[in-house]
Formats: sequence, C-alpha cells, structure tokens
Amino acid sequence: MHILVSNDDGIFSPGIKALALALRALGEVSVVAPDVEQSGVGHSITFRRPLRFKHTASAGFGEIPAYRVDGTPADCVVLGSQILGRPDLVVSGINIGVNMGLDLTHSGTVAAAIEGASIGVPSIAFSLDASSDELQFEEAAKHALPIARWVLEHGLPPQTLLNVNFPNRPPQGVRLTRLSTRRYEDTVFEREDPEGRPYYWVAGKPSGVLEEGTDFWAVSNGFISVTPVSMDYTNHALLEKLGDKPLFTG
Amino acid sequence: MHILVSNDDGIFSPGIKALALALRALGEVSVVAPDVEQSGVGHSITFRRPLRFKHTASAGFGEIPAYRVDGTPADCVVLGSQILGRPDLVVSGINIGVNMGLDLTHSGTVAAAIEGASIGVPSIAFSLDASSDELQFEEAAKHALPIARWVLEHGLPPQTLLNVNFPNRPPQGVRLTRLSTRRYEDTVFEREDPEGRPYYWVAGKPSGVLEEGTDFWAVSNGFISVTPVSMDYTNHALLEKLGDKPLFTG
Amino acid sequence: MHILVSNDDGIFSPGIKALALALRALGEVSVVAPDVEQSGVGHSITFRRPLRFKHTASAGFGEIPAYRVDGTPADCVVLGSQILGRPDLVVSGINIGVNMGLDLTHSGTVAAAIEGASIGVPSIAFSLDASSDELQFEEAAKHALPIARWVLEHGLPPQTLLNVNFPNRPPQGVRLTRLSTRRYEDTVFEREDPEGRPYYWVAGKPSGVLEEGTDFWAVSNGFISVTPVSMDYTNHALLEKLGDKPLFTG
Amino acid sequence: MHILVSNDDGIFSPGIKALALALRALGEVSVVAPDVEQSGVGHSITFRRPLRFKHTASAGFGEIPAYRVDGTPADCVVLGSQILGRPDLVVSGINIGVNMGLDLTHSGTVAAAIEGASIGVPSIAFSLDASSDELQFEEAAKHALPIARWVLEHGLPPQTLLNVNFPNRPPQGVRLTRLSTRRYEDTVFEREDPEGRPYYWVAGKPSGVLEEGTDFWAVSNGFISVTPVSMDYTNHALLEKLGDKPLFTG
Repeated sequence: MHILVSNDDGIFSPGIKALALALRALGEVSVVAPDVEQSGVGHSITFRRPLRFKHTASAGFGEIPAYRVDGTPADCVVLGSQILGRPDLVVSGINIGVNMGLDLTHSGTVAAAIEGASIGVPSIAFSLDASSDELQFEEAAKHALPIARWVLEHGLPPQTLLNVNFPNRPPQGVRLTRLSTRRYEDTVFEREDPEGRPYYWVAGKPSGVLEEGTDFWAVSNGFISVTPVSMDYTNHALLEKLGDKPLFTG
Repeated sequence: MHILVSNDDGIFSPGIKALALALRALGEVSVVAPDVEQSGVGHSITFRRPLRFKHTASAGFGEIPAYRVDGTPADCVVLGSQILGRPDLVVSGINIGVNMGLDLTHSGTVAAAIEGASIGVPSIAFSLDASSDELQFEEAAKHALPIARWVLEHGLPPQTLLNVNFPNRPPQGVRLTRLSTRRYEDTVFEREDPEGRPYYWVAGKPSGVLEEGTDFWAVSNGFISVTPVSMDYTNHALLEKLGDKPLFTG
Repeated sequence: MHILVSNDDGIFSPGIKALALALRALGEVSVVAPDVEQSGVGHSITFRRPLRFKHTASAGFGEIPAYRVDGTPADCVVLGSQILGRPDLVVSGINIGVNMGLDLTHSGTVAAAIEGASIGVPSIAFSLDASSDELQFEEAAKHALPIARWVLEHGLPPQTLLNVNFPNRPPQGVRLTRLSTRRYEDTVFEREDPEGRPYYWVAGKPSGVLEEGTDFWAVSNGFISVTPVSMDYTNHALLEKLGDKPLFTG
Repeated sequence: MHILVSNDDGIFSPGIKALALALRALGEVSVVAPDVEQSGVGHSITFRRPLRFKHTASAGFGEIPAYRVDGTPADCVVLGSQILGRPDLVVSGINIGVNMGLDLTHSGTVAAAIEGASIGVPSIAFSLDASSDELQFEEAAKHALPIARWVLEHGLPPQTLLNVNFPNRPPQGVRLTRLSTRRYEDTVFEREDPEGRPYYWVAGKPSGVLEEGTDFWAVSNGFISVTPVSMDYTNHALLEKLGDKPLFTG
C-alpha cells in the first residue's frame, strides 16, 4: 500500500505532519507538498514552466520520504504519482480551516484530491475547523485513519473523492453529508499605498443557510462531515429541460 | 445591461478583444482581466496579498472601459463586480484552446464564470479549439452573441453556468451537451538544468472516450458545444447508497 | 551598428518606445524588455528557472523587432545579446523616475546597463524625472540621441557605463557629474489585513545633501546629468589604510 | 549590541543558522531572512506590494528571535531594522557559494549588507566556497566571529561594507583584497518544452584573470578574503578626464 500525502498549506504545516505520521499505520507513506503556502490556488496545474521536486530532510517527517515542489497541490500529485510511482490512495490536508459548500473549487487541498481522483486513485481531502494548533491536528489525524482505511478497503466510484471536514471540538461522530450552499461572500476593501495609489483586499465572510444534512450543518453540530464529491459537473436537470430545442438562433 | 468580460489568457489576448467588442450589441461592456496569462490557475482567489486594479488605455478596446488586475480570473470577477457594480452577465474568454470534460476545474476561463455564478450572476465561459488566430476569434465571437442574448433573456438556475466550446472550423450548429470524461493525461518529463540539477515538465495528452452527447463529441464533429454546468458537486448516488450506515469505525 | 534596448518598466512603457524609435537614427535597433514592470529588482539574473523570449507584435515598435522576457532587465540583456547577436551598444530606459546617488543598485534600469558593461559592451542607462507623460519621453529621447552617438564613437573604459538622468523640464544643458549621496530613506508602514494580520509597506522619502557637481544637483537645476559609473566597487582608500596588519585575530 | 542577521538562501539554510548561533558571543542576535531562496535577486527592494514579517519558531534558531519575510534580503534589512530597532551591525550569509569580483551586484547576500551600509550601520557579507555542508558552515562561522568583532570595535567608513569569502578548506589566514574582474560568463541554452515552444536557461561559467591581491586570488589560495567595498560607484578617473568639455552636442 502506497499512500501519497499532499496539502496546500505547505510542507511545514502541522496538519500534513500529523496526517502523514498517522497514516503510516496503513502502509508506506510519501509526502509531496508545496514549498510555500498555496491556499486558495484552486485546481491549478503548472505547465507553462517546469517544476522542482526536492527531497527535504528538515520538515519533521522522520523516516517518511518527503519532497517539496515549487508548485501547486495538484502539481504535487501529478509529480508524486509519476516520479514515486502510482499510489493506492491520495490524501490531502489536514487543511487549516474548513473547505465546504460552494467554496470547494477554491481549495488547493480539495484540488489535490480531485487530481488524485482524476487519475483514477481513490482520494480524500481533510480539513479542520481550526487555526494552527498542533494538538488539534494530531487529534483529527486519529479520526482520519479509519476513513482512509475504509476507502482503501472499499474503493470509490470513478471520478469521486471524499471531502472530509473536522469540527473544532472533539467530534460526536461521523455524518455523511451533501455540500451546502455555504460560501465566503467576498467583500473588497480599497486602501491607498504610501504613494497614494489604490489597492484592494479581497476578504470573505461566510454566508449560507444552515440546512440539515449538509457539510456545514454537520460541522456546526460537532460532527465529522464526509461528503462524496463527484467530478461530473454537468447540470443534467437543465440539460434535460432544454432538450434539443433550437435555442440560440443568431 | 452591464456585461463584465474577463478571461485567463490576459488582457492583451485576441480572444477577449473579439468577445468584448461583439457583446457591445447587448449592452454596456466592461473588461476586467489579468495583466499576464493565467492559464491553468483554476478557481484561485487571492486573499493573502492585495490586488491592483488599473485602467488600461492601450489594450485595444476602444471606448470600452478596460482594467487589468495582477491576479486570477476569479479575482477579476470579484473586483470587477464590486468596484464597477454588479453585472447582469459575466462572460469569460474566448479562451485559446478548449475547456472540456474532467479538465474543467483547471480552467481559469471557467473559474471566472464559476465566480460569476457563485455571486448569483448568469455566467458563460467561451473557449475555442484554436491557437491565436485573430480572425477565428472574431468569427467565434459572432456565435457567442446569440448565446449571451439567450442567457440574458432566460436567465440560468442558481449555481449554474454555461460552458461553451467552439470547434476549429465554421460551426455546423449548436449542441447541448454533457461533460465528457475527456482529460489531459499528464506526463512528467525529467530534464537537467545547466548545473546538472533535475527539473520536471508536466505535459498533457488528451485522452478519453468519444461518447455521443458530450462536449468532446460535439466539438469533434464541428458543432458548438453548450454544456450547463452545476456547482453542486455532491455525488448524490453514492450518498444515497451509503446511507446512514456506521462506516468509519476507528 | 546593433543597439539593444531594454528597461525595467516593461515593454509597454512609453519610455522604452520613445528611446527605441529615436535610436533608429544610429543603427539597427532591437528591443528586449520584461513583460511586466520590474522596478526595484536591482541586478537580478534568473538562473533557477528557465526564461521565455517571445516576439511581440503589439507593443507599438513598428518595424523594430521587439521581444518580451518573463524575467529581469539583466536577463533581457543576457538573452538579447546571445540570441540576437552581440550588440555594439546597450541602452536602458527611459525610466519613469530618476535613478541617482546611493539608490543606483536598486535600479533595474541601471542593472541592464551594468549587465551590458560586464559583457564588454558600451552601455547607458537613461532615466527621467517624470511620471508617465508620453510627450516628455519623446522629448528626452531626442537628448538621449547625441549621448548614445558619442558613446558609439568614443567607447567607454572597461567595466564602465554612463548613468544619465533627465530633469523634469526642458534641459538647460548637460553636466558631467559624480554620484550624490542621495537616497530614498525607507520608512515602514504597518497595516492590518481584513483578517487582522499585520503587513508592511516599504516607502522611500528622498534624502541627501545637495552638493554641487553631483547628479542630484544637476537634475535639480534643470541639467541633464551624465555620470560615469564604474563596476570596481573596491574601497581602495580603506584597503590601503588597513594595509597588511593582522586585523582579525580569533 | 544588537546584530541583525540576514541572507539570500532563505531562513532554512544551514549558513544563516551557523552564523547567527556563532554571533551570540558578541551580543543580542535577531534573524530576519527570506522565506524562500532569493539567490540572484541583487539589491531588490519591494515597494509595489506589501510584505509579511512573521515570527518563525521552527527554523532551528533556538532562543534567537527569527522572522521570515516574503521578500528580498534588502527587504529583510529594511523591515528588521525598523520593526526590531536599529542594529549595531548587519551581517549577511553565510552564502552557499562565493560572491566575488564583477558579480557582486547580482548577490542578494551582498545586497543585504549594502542595505545595512546605506542606512549607516556597519555591515558584512559572508560567503563560502562550498555547497550545503552544515559542518563547513559551522567552521566558517567561527572565522566570521573575529571579523564581526573587529567591525563592531572599529566601525567602517560611511557607505562601506566588508565582503568576506571563505575558501573551501581550512583557511590559511586572512587577506585584505580588492575585487577581481572575475565573473560568471553567461551562456544561454535553448530548449523546447513538451509543446514544442522554446525556452532558455541562463548558465554561468566563471571567467577572469587570477591577479594577486584580489578576492579570487585569495580564496583560490586557501585564504579568507576580506574586501572593503564602497558604494561610491562614480568612475572618478573618467570624470576628470572628460572634464567640462561640451561632449554631447545634438
């Protein structure tokens, strides 16, 4: 069993360390992660410039082989699975902060799992509703272990990954959920630099309804949320409704 | 009617110029686009550093107000819709090269439309199966016009966008399609820099089955492919199948 | 005569356009410049990643061959002189804003000329005490012409370049000058991002004494300042004073 | 005594760790260094975007306060000296690889010392003719100590710094030197990316004459080279020779 671990907070994040160390119980673990934080990069692949892939002894992974890449989480999965050999499982995280609802496509953590799923390897993204407290990540990693074991044993349908979010307290259990419509509503703040020129900060404020059965609802109520995520983004309902009518006549 | 136009090839690309000029027939057009090419950035949002938003007189848009942003396509939609006012339509493209199938989440062009849809504005991503031939983009833009008009008139369901791909020849008509499983299968090429250190290129080779009714099939047969894309990524089939069984026991 | 023109404000800056067009009077001109603004990069050379070198038709240089590089001004001179052939003259600018005194080493404009001098080609850096007024650059370029002609005719000593600054009004004449001790005294402004985390702006305020015979003095009095700059940075006075005494005993 | 330590290889480099730990013998030490390698950046200052300045516990400096900056070595000195208070000494390094001769202005390590000198603080740049062998850096740091102590006791003239290079073997002694004309002669290698588009590597090969009394000569012969470097780059000889003749007549 070969497990490829990546993330988007970078190879020095406490979340990936906790996750990689915990998963040694399931097989051989390799870490391939960005050299600097890549939060918010979404599903970027770097193909306009080449990448470096460097063994890293000093990132605290002990005997686990660890490599850092000057690219995105998806790059890490592409390089890791080709240079180190095709893994049996791709896991990503544990991300500092949740990845839920409509913001899923922003997440580099989820992107690594999407990349895993798209090359046909069962994949899981893990995120924690917390800032960078090392102990919480170690605790969360214990709960990640049975989920990873289940996926290794049962597999996942094609083009499907699991998106897992941990609550910010000892979890009450696990809930299978659907994605909420929760998202960060972006606000733009205009400021002036010291030379009087404007610049802009994008800041998000969580918004969205707390519907039962969603990831947002589960995590808010202290459960671990496990959402099966598909890569078939077609809106089939609309497709059927529109049918073959001649819609767009010039 | 206010139409916000963005892309991921950058503000100097022939594709965005052709699209913005054509859409003047439908209302007031503003261009907000990255200052350099952002292909492959996926749905990135920049929130760790601030952004610039600069009026640009020299990009060939004539009297259309045009702004360049030192960020991603999604950043452009966030800034544009907040600084210039909420648009009635977000369009993105025309991208140099198709965006189809499983590679959708890599695309910055599609990400701009996803961002539009996620703030509740009807949104369309346009891509062309061609390299940078200015005439082809002008031709494609003519076909983009009735699609944009239809969306302005009929609207789109929540969290839904249209993903449009133009073939590399005069189109035979329009087809409503579902996403194919086509993707770029990534290969990694190892090389050595002049000092003997390895580096890696990621290169994609299109793969996937040519199934009727898909975007790939439509474009391959000379049709304009219009795919309704949803932002509910939940795999509902798997969710129902797994039900509430206690799956992940430590 | 082959003249290589670069800058650090980027290939779309009015300063490089004015300079390149004016220098056609002296020989064959090629433009190789950064694709985005590189102000403040100093004498960077990019050797950790490869570079692109792309012909650019749309930057307004007419029949002058123009190439943009995704790197620094010094990179542009390295690539330009090797790919297009060794030039007889390297000129850089016209920079938006002066480059004088102790701040010389910050300047990408000057760095391009330093790179030229270090490969043994006579080199000149041009800067203008102005913001981006196209007419002023055309006016300054007229005055750049006789200076470039003189250098082509007389050459320059090894490892020497000319650093030229134009005043912000019609010049009263030319003055040969030494570097002043003028510099931008950096102030740091602390601010908070929307999530409450600190960040810092570096801003410079010009400081320094206005001594006769310096670049600062010449430009302040409406003259074009021409300073011969050497690349022998050794402090010979101190070297002689310290002599061979055993100074640093553990 | 407050000593500010920076470098251009990044805060995780063995060279800065060895240097910072050794200098504790002379006073209070603070480390402010780039978060990623910045080799070759020259004397860049970042003033177009703001900077982060983050305390870093995990970089192996023990009780020495250590901060990482998402900028250049010169940025580190600007931020460090303003946020932590004006230092009595700025040291930079120990760089992986020498910084000698005409290549001085490329060096980020030297740029940090230039920045120190330009704000009036005695400053030293240290470089080692070696790759990343931790033991060699610890050995070199022992020899850096008396040089730093001498500078703290005797000061340096205005706008002057010391540029120190260690040989790649146990040093035979110290030599005061002048800068050589040694430089890396850049060669450009053209290659093709997987899509057939050209890209270019810049690679340097050391060239230059081995003259007695220079930094290159000292290091080649197993000595520690100490070069006083001035920031008055005026070529006074040429300035006098040209005098006040009316040179550049239009």
